[in-house]
Amino acid sequence: MDPDGEGERPLRREPSGVTASDPPLSSSSSSSSAAASAVCARGHPVLRPAVPVPSDIEVSQSIVRDVGLLPIEIVASEAGILPPELLPWGIGKAKVMVAPTLRRLADVPDGNYVVCTGINPTPLGEGKSTTTIGIVQALGAILGKKAFACIRQPSQGPTFGIKGGAAGGGYAQVVPMEEFNLHLTGDIHAISAANNLLAAAIDSRMYHEDSQSDDALYRRLALAKSGMPFTSVMRRRLVKLGIDDTKSPEDLSTEERSKFARLDIDPSTITWNRVLDVCDRHLRKIEIGIGPAETIQPRGTNKGEVPRVQHSRTTGFDIAVASEIMAVLALARDLPDLREKLGNMVVAYSRSGMTVTADDLGCGGALTVLMKDALLPTLMQTVERTPVLVHAGPFANIAIGNSSIVADRLALKLAGEDGYVVTEAGFGADIGMEKFFNIKCRASGLKPKCAVIVATVRALKMHGGGPPVSAGKPLPREYTDENIPLVRAGCCNLVKHIENARKFGVEVVVAVNQFKSDTAAEMEAVREASLAAGAFDAVVANHWAEGGRGAEALGRAVIAACEASDVGNFRFLYDLALPIRAKVETISREIYGADGVDFSELAEQQMAQYESSGFGNLPICIAKTQYSFSCDPKAKGVPTGFRIFVREIRSCVGAGFLYPICGDIMTIPGLPTRPGFYDVDIDVETGQVIGLF
Amino acid sequence: MDPDGEGERPLRREPSGVTASDPPLSSSSSSSSAAASAVCARGHPVLRPAVPVPSDIEVSQSIVRDVGLLPIEIVASEAGILPPELLPWGIGKAKVMVAPTLRRLADVPDGNYVVCTGINPTPLGEGKSTTTIGIVQALGAILGKKAFACIRQPSQGPTFGIKGGAAGGGYAQVVPMEEFNLHLTGDIHAISAANNLLAAAIDSRMYHEDSQSDDALYRRLALAKSGMPFTSVMRRRLVKLGIDDTKSPEDLSTEERSKFARLDIDPSTITWNRVLDVCDRHLRKIEIGIGPAETIQPRGTNKGEVPRVQHSRTTGFDIAVASEIMAVLALARDLPDLREKLGNMVVAYSRSGMTVTADDLGCGGALTVLMKDALLPTLMQTVERTPVLVHAGPFANIAIGNSSIVADRLALKLAGEDGYVVTEAGFGADIGMEKFFNIKCRASGLKPKCAVIVATVRALKMHGGGPPVSAGKPLPREYTDENIPLVRAGCCNLVKHIENARKFGVEVVVAVNQFKSDTAAEMEAVREASLAAGAFDAVVANHWAEGGRGAEALGRAVIAACEASDVGNFRFLYDLALPIRAKVETISREIYGADGVDFSELAEQQMAQYESSGFGNLPICIAKTQYSFSCDPKAKGVPTGFRIFVREIRSCVGAGFLYPICGDIMTIPGLPTRPGFYDVDIDVETGQVIGLF
Repeated sequence: MDPDGEGERPLRREPSGVTASDPPLSSSSSSSSAAASAVCARGHPVLRPAVPVPSDIEVSQSIVRDVGLLPIEIVASEAGILPPELLPWGIGKAKVMVAPTLRRLADVPDGNYVVCTGINPTPLGEGKSTTTIGIVQALGAILGKKAFACIRQPSQGPTFGIKGGAAGGGYAQVVPMEEFNLHLTGDIHAISAANNLLAAAIDSRMYHEDSQSDDALYRRLALAKSGMPFTSVMRRRLVKLGIDDTKSPEDLSTEERSKFARLDIDPSTITWNRVLDVCDRHLRKIEIGIGPAETIQPRGTNKGEVPRVQHSRTTGFDIAVASEIMAVLALARDLPDLREKLGNMVVAYSRSGMTVTADDLGCGGALTVLMKDALLPTLMQTVERTPVLVHAGPFANIAIGNSSIVADRLALKLAGEDGYVVTEAGFGADIGMEKFFNIKCRASGLKPKCAVIVATVRALKMHGGGPPVSAGKPLPREYTDENIPLVRAGCCNLVKHIENARKFGVEVVVAVNQFKSDTAAEMEAVREASLAAGAFDAVVANHWAEGGRGAEALGRAVIAACEASDVGNFRFLYDLALPIRAKVETISREIYGADGVDFSELAEQQMAQYESSGFGNLPICIAKTQYSFSCDPKAKGVPTGFRIFVREIRSCVGAGFLYPICGDIMTIPGLPTRPGFYDVDIDVETGQVIGLF
Repeated sequence: MDPDGEGERPLRREPSGVTASDPPLSSSSSSSSAAASAVCARGHPVLRPAVPVPSDIEVSQSIVRDVGLLPIEIVASEAGILPPELLPWGIGKAKVMVAPTLRRLADVPDGNYVVCTGINPTPLGEGKSTTTIGIVQALGAILGKKAFACIRQPSQGPTFGIKGGAAGGGYAQVVPMEEFNLHLTGDIHAISAANNLLAAAIDSRMYHEDSQSDDALYRRLALAKSGMPFTSVMRRRLVKLGIDDTKSPEDLSTEERSKFARLDIDPSTITWNRVLDVCDRHLRKIEIGIGPAETIQPRGTNKGEVPRVQHSRTTGFDIAVASEIMAVLALARDLPDLREKLGNMVVAYSRSGMTVTADDLGCGGALTVLMKDALLPTLMQTVERTPVLVHAGPFANIAIGNSSIVADRLALKLAGEDGYVVTEAGFGADIGMEKFFNIKCRASGLKPKCAVIVATVRALKMHGGGPPVSAGKPLPREYTDENIPLVRAGCCNLVKHIENARKFGVEVVVAVNQFKSDTAAEMEAVREASLAAGAFDAVVANHWAEGGRGAEALGRAVIAACEASDVGNFRFLYDLALPIRAKVETISREIYGADGVDFSELAEQQMAQYESSGFGNLPICIAKTQYSFSCDPKAKGVPTGFRIFVREIRSCVGAGFLYPICGDIMTIPGLPTRPGFYDVDIDVETGQVIGLF
């Protein structure tokens, strides 16, 4: 994998490749032939898709210009959110006050919980986000159901690098797409601020500990404000150390003072990186603290006795969404849980092997304060004015790659018994869906009924052995001409994902996300294979070109699947009480189809350490390539006869999982020679954004 | 100066030092004896200050709890902002759509423009922000004028380090203070994102240039999207290079292609740092690009011919508010000007001495898109429900330390002919006020009528030779007991600032920000000295304890000064056409009272370079200590017989000024042993923030 992606930009639909004379593949009553004034049953204008479909930003801007955004207060009120529960937040966005809303709706039964996932991605694109949005447009705008999409906030950095936005696409997207893709309501910025405050606290604490005696440290930490009691975060450390937390700072013994004040961080154990929401490869590995002021007189020495020592260290930056704080945001149930998880994050170990947490560093409260607004999901709308909750966006490479528990809980209560919540899981179903079930649903207690697995004929052809493709070159004929054998061969990938989903006891609906070149026979081949593999249904959908109307059949299939589903059947793949090794093996064999797992010596040591530290009962969040069931991104289809190699196992103790590293995992991308920002500008007269994609 | 501030926390008012039996110094009809239901002429509850004055966060939270925030839509409507011109943005905040508002008000005469500044700061505190807010509370809530405060957004990093918030204090503050001090509406986060995108673009461009031929570079930059014309930012580079910008990418000659594609940055000339809004001393100086993936095969060599070369570089982080983008935000007049200024920022020079700008790197448009919302000022309210515009906050150490031109322009139109806009200038008047007049007013064309110079009896005593003070220790008697000679001696500092302000042709009102221990005779001494120095008036004010009522006399003095002032008298201190040297000398002699200026050899070279690059006509923004008229922070009062030494001269070509460095300037603070974050936590049941100060 070239993480800087010269030529790695996924092949996006090329609107210019479709001429104006091409009719849409299926006609619909909402096509451009409909009357301008047509309104739907909800009283909103019926979507009138243009042919050919313009670029995503043009669709978004044309909706805002020609149809108008529904004021977010109205979106909220139609979604069942009361005015005092809403915080409008810039153009077309609002945050929802979760706690009072959930209190009010405590007795309402949850809606139908649907996860949208996909086959293993290929450069040809599958359209998980687009389909997630398409389904709720169908359910909400066409079929008259209360329907919410819960999607992740995209990382802003890659938007200016090689990756486009993530608001969906065509006529199945969240608007305004500029607002969605830029800053949104600042949650990722809050994560960066919190992450980097903690990072500064680590290095600065080591700096002060390395140059001060226990007595001086304790005086400054606990006695500086004379007569003041321990602060709440200090009392947490006292409890951890087994010191009576009702004592006054003056009352600690010398030994207790030393234990309290000296974290004694072993620098080699620090796992906490700084973060930026920018593609900046030069920050992957850096040396910090090399300036003239970052020297210390080592404690216990006198001035001039030994030369001052440079207080430097090798570390690195990750992209902001890779921060454990993002993982915490996705998995926190509410504000008290957020406070606990943030305080419990382990950033290093002491020289005696004790965990060093954010609360030990005095930061847990401040981090929570920085994150208090970020805990509120952002309400936006689709092009058909149905509600979308945008929240969290943990890096699927190393974390769960799912939207938040908070947003899903909120949406399920707002949807109510007859309503639907479609939440998106990142990467292929072997990663995103597995983590959704085993980690997110376990943490939330919420029970899904249905998994929608998105596939495209083109991508299946690649899994069936079709030739590689590259950006800027015409697609090989295999992908543009009918080729039933290639489709049939590639369905193996889809089939394995269907079988995997069935292991969790949910119904499966396959969504064939339609491209112009797909033929009826090809699509039928996918449908047959899906039903044979145990899918409840398999439906072709054309929401990209037609909006909700294009996904109407898909929406009906989801409704039927939910009606047929019994949440009592939902089950996890493994028991948390199993040893770490057994949990990794279960996922690898059952989901990936591996013959077994090999652990490096380091990984063996880490398993022993985590189990002795009491972290052995955490769920497992495997970090591996999204492009294959195996760890080899080139192994398409359903590879067999392979083993999984676990190089090391890292922990997100605050968020609540362990993540074995299987393969090369890149945690901050770079910029290609011609980054996406070259296209981006602003019309200074209108303020209109140009060139986002 | 110890930039990490062990014991450097400014001495703040200690509410606990005042007992409940202490009566307020002056009684007022709005004190706590007033009826609970009393409303003012505007129909709002009359402020009922508690005695003793609680902590700032307690005042803020008690206003929100007991009186209630005025919905920001109502604040806006009372301020004359129409609903479509307002973007509500979270709790108690909204952004104002400047362009349509200014278009609507184009024919309205500007209000009275007042700058609030102070004597040279001391650890005893003067209260510029508090007085800025106090005056508008007096003008707006007590005297019935349309009155706006324009203040800076505080840097969030130091809030968790050693510095408290900057929302004012006591009963003269912006509420809710947590919203003001945390994230606000994300402008500083937008600056960080933009600044760091540009930084990544620099290193990544050098990386690609160092490893690719001209042809490969050009192909990727200009020809990757075959048949597509140059993007708008590319056309700007063509114009700069003198190449016909109507040509297609295919039509450039080999020589033109090379000129276009190769920026050929000289790494030793890069002045662009990365930024974070965190106090993180270990990032002051760092080595980047030391990872295994950040190596290159040098261009012109074949694989394996020479070893790959590490693509590393020494650089550093500044605090976000020190970014040139913040300076641009403060000085941009509107969106088109923002686009030009951002694109024109010079980040380095080529090996042949040509400037390398953000537009050369292809970033100017993307930076503007990232900053488009940040260009809109944030509307908030004081504890007396009068409007406040919060915008920008350039680091006074190296930039102008003033709020934005956009906010001031907007407020002046909203205030109208009979209204008042009080804008705050950071640091002492020798820095903040001088830059306000010579740089900000020159860029805006706006003409101020009055300067309010804030002083306290205590701080003047220190300028008069009073002993040093230190945190945690009781104040020396000189500051708590009446000492007229010390006050008289210290008035020299105030007098010099008054005389300086008069050179610009504005009226001066001195605000004596009252402390409990000040005696009537001491305050009278300040008044006498002020009037003798040419002040229009000098007034004691007690807004901290009493709100607007406590600054009523000050408000009346400001009104009278504005009525007496003739904007036709306003003049700059120097002509832009003067040589750089002469401009620096004029400021140093006229404002600081220096005998002259010495320039290092480097500074001499830089002056020559800037003048030959066409930057010689920019205004001068001197970077020096705020604690003294001289460059020696310990030289209180009015030092004489000193010279200014200019070590180097840096440029902010985009923002539009040159900044000579006089003394040690720290651009990212560190954290003390016990940072402020130890006090910060959240009540997880109520969501209430605890311990911000």
